[in-house]
Amino acid sequence: MKPINVGILGLGTVGGGTFNVLMGNAAEIARRAGRPITVSHVAAREYDPTQLVGLDNVEICDDALALAQNPDIDILVELIGGYSPAREIVLKAIENGKHIVTANKALIALHGNEIFAAAQQQGVTVAFEAAVAGGIPIIKAVREGLAANHIEWIAGIINGTGNFILSEMRDQGRDFADVLQEAQALGYAEADPTFDVEGIDAAHKLTILASLAFGIPLQFDRCYTEGIGQIEPQDVIYAEQFGYRIKHLGITRKTEEGIELRVHPTLIPEKRLLANVDGVMNAVLVKGDAVGPTLYYGAGAGSLPTASAVVADIIDIARTLTTDPGNRVPHLAFQPDELSDDPVITMDAVQTAYYLRMTVADKPGVLAAISNILSDADISIEAMQQKEPHGGATEVPLVMLTHTVREHSMNAAMAKIKALDTVSGDIIRMRVEQLS
Amino acid sequence: MKPINVGILGLGTVGGGTFNVLMGNAAEIARRAGRPITVSHVAAREYDPTQLVGLDNVEICDDALALAQNPDIDILVELIGGYSPAREIVLKAIENGKHIVTANKALIALHGNEIFAAAQQQGVTVAFEAAVAGGIPIIKAVREGLAANHIEWIAGIINGTGNFILSEMRDQGRDFADVLQEAQALGYAEADPTFDVEGIDAAHKLTILASLAFGIPLQFDRCYTEGIGQIEPQDVIYAEQFGYRIKHLGITRKTEEGIELRVHPTLIPEKRLLANVDGVMNAVLVKGDAVGPTLYYGAGAGSLPTASAVVADIIDIARTLTTDPGNRVPHLAFQPDELSDDPVITMDAVQTAYYLRMTVADKPGVLAAISNILSDADISIEAMQQKEPHGGATEVPLVMLTHTVREHSMNAAMAKIKALDTVSGDIIRMRVEQLS
Repeated sequence: MKPINVGILGLGTVGGGTFNVLMGNAAEIARRAGRPITVSHVAAREYDPTQLVGLDNVEICDDALALAQNPDIDILVELIGGYSPAREIVLKAIENGKHIVTANKALIALHGNEIFAAAQQQGVTVAFEAAVAGGIPIIKAVREGLAANHIEWIAGIINGTGNFILSEMRDQGRDFADVLQEAQALGYAEADPTFDVEGIDAAHKLTILASLAFGIPLQFDRCYTEGIGQIEPQDVIYAEQFGYRIKHLGITRKTEEGIELRVHPTLIPEKRLLANVDGVMNAVLVKGDAVGPTLYYGAGAGSLPTASAVVADIIDIARTLTTDPGNRVPHLAFQPDELSDDPVITMDAVQTAYYLRMTVADKPGVLAAISNILSDADISIEAMQQKEPHGGATEVPLVMLTHTVREHSMNAAMAKIKALDTVSGDIIRMRVEQLS
Repeated sequence: MKPINVGILGLGTVGGGTFNVLMGNAAEIARRAGRPITVSHVAAREYDPTQLVGLDNVEICDDALALAQNPDIDILVELIGGYSPAREIVLKAIENGKHIVTANKALIALHGNEIFAAAQQQGVTVAFEAAVAGGIPIIKAVREGLAANHIEWIAGIINGTGNFILSEMRDQGRDFADVLQEAQALGYAEADPTFDVEGIDAAHKLTILASLAFGIPLQFDRCYTEGIGQIEPQDVIYAEQFGYRIKHLGITRKTEEGIELRVHPTLIPEKRLLANVDGVMNAVLVKGDAVGPTLYYGAGAGSLPTASAVVADIIDIARTLTTDPGNRVPHLAFQPDELSDDPVITMDAVQTAYYLRMTVADKPGVLAAISNILSDADISIEAMQQKEPHGGATEVPLVMLTHTVREHSMNAAMAKIKALDTVSGDIIRMRVEQLS
């Protein structure tokens, strides 16, 4: 069969890895795909030729828009990242009838609806396996492997930097700022770690997963995000004492009221596989009505793991070149005219259990006052521990787990508790999920 | 688009589940697949109509061969299991131009080469996701999701019955026979548990995975199998003391000498996710050269989980109906004319580390004699523990872990150790894998 010509845009970490996998595994890939897949063109401003194998036979330029219009290219692989000019280049390439492969989660989460509509009109495919959880074929699993199911919920560790920090805090008893600094030194965290530790990167990925699971348009702006910067070592310890671990999860769930879409620190039972995913690794737990829980684990970032997903997408597209567009796997798992208008609900309406930590006066009646407020709000306490005072301290930490309650009620109760004379400072609140 | 007509052969556990998923999730499936997928015909000898939803509009007969030739059926779903008449019916349906979906691991492992050749000639697809690890989309992951990789090895818990027994032995300190009896009472194990506990069922699945990973023809007769019936509670305890857990794994690995294909009890580090997969659940760990390790976890059996995989295959086939056959995903992941003749090597040639337990006389010089035999065979000892004698016993258990060695050398050394006057009874030997 005719070789497929690929144009790669960007030769950074992921672009370089993609180039090297396509070159290094070319024979294996052709044995699978039934035809050679050739990198014919590359557009890159900066690259290190000593890190790239077989660059000699490739046409290199620095004009991305020219690549998007080059008639010799079948598939354009966008690996420059960011919103602009990625969006303009991708739309231009689609206009020129090219299929697209991208690892750009921000682009898909924010501009995916526009991009998929354009692709649909032109009868081309935009593939984005590498945009969620790096090398883990999670998009393929949700979109095709579990296609028989009503998906009930998804919960994932989908940011390696955050998971590395939480794993180190737990294993070493270190505090957040300290570990973040190390992560930056190791290259796991950016100089500006906001995207990772505030949950924005995870929200991009979760937005994509939610659309694939429930067939709703991409709605990044409706995703709730809460970072991990407020977690203290004592919370990690108290969680363990209750039999839980703290993970920064992206959670999306279909309820009768709509779709939950939220990224936040979460206590999960220590026996769950997801609780035992450590370091920079990613894992996604998907619950389908027929299959039950399934979990997918692997490297969520890095040059070669991400390249693995990019190249798998290229092979998939090569295979569907002769398929009429209506028979291809739809971009958002459901046919474009079958998307759902289920609303994304606000956090106020979300129902979960909670971990609470507060500082209370070490004297009689305090517990009763707090318990009464919770009871009046119909919030049941599952477990409670009042810690011993340190030295001669007159205040002690009080930690508790509640049963499931609507967040709106919890917020109201927390405001009342905080107003008590016997409670000082902020109340630390984290959500608790059983994931069963 | 035109509805797809499905004929289901068999309405047992998996057939009934498949029927109910296709009926119950029909709207969701059509939203994904872009067309209705309809069960038009069923052939079954025995079934319980009270367990099947929507049976009224379906034509039911008990003539499987008639179904295989019925011109109204697009996809024949074979869920009767066993070798015969499943093989004859599937071949007849292929001859009649029908696509096949099957959950029959025995059929594929033993007759897959013949069946795929026939399908290739007729330009139809035989899909078998449900044949390996039930609801986990592991075939899709290996064959498509990781298509960019040279697969290095696969290690999987691919028999739920065996994993349930080993989990119970560990958690409760019970012995094999006792737990097997409970598993039979719970319906997890068959009255004749041979296929499960001797590793034959796992060998069927591993044979399939090895072909997908390395592009070799199916060679079930070359798969080494060792059951779990010889494992004693003390081995579980000693393994834990070394930081390991015992799992019944299917392992296939590409080496310079050929392909390893083996099912046996294996000690793996307790920190690995695979070591923490308990009960009847399955999990498969796949190492690719680009992606690194990835793991896939879920229910490996059961009515609805298996149906989830069967129905995903049906949807996949619906999508490729207009694809020319040369562009479809090849049955064994690699193009039929690109299969490899890499040999499957014998256990003699396999290199692993070992756990050994033997009963030795409690007196000086015993350890030295054993150490000398191992040293002469170039076998390094990684850890050794001589246990305390019970009461006035003159013999004690000696347990050890070795470094990696060729099995041929280990067998020779074990024969010499067994011949020592100071060693009595059999030497218990299990293989140890780091899986990193």
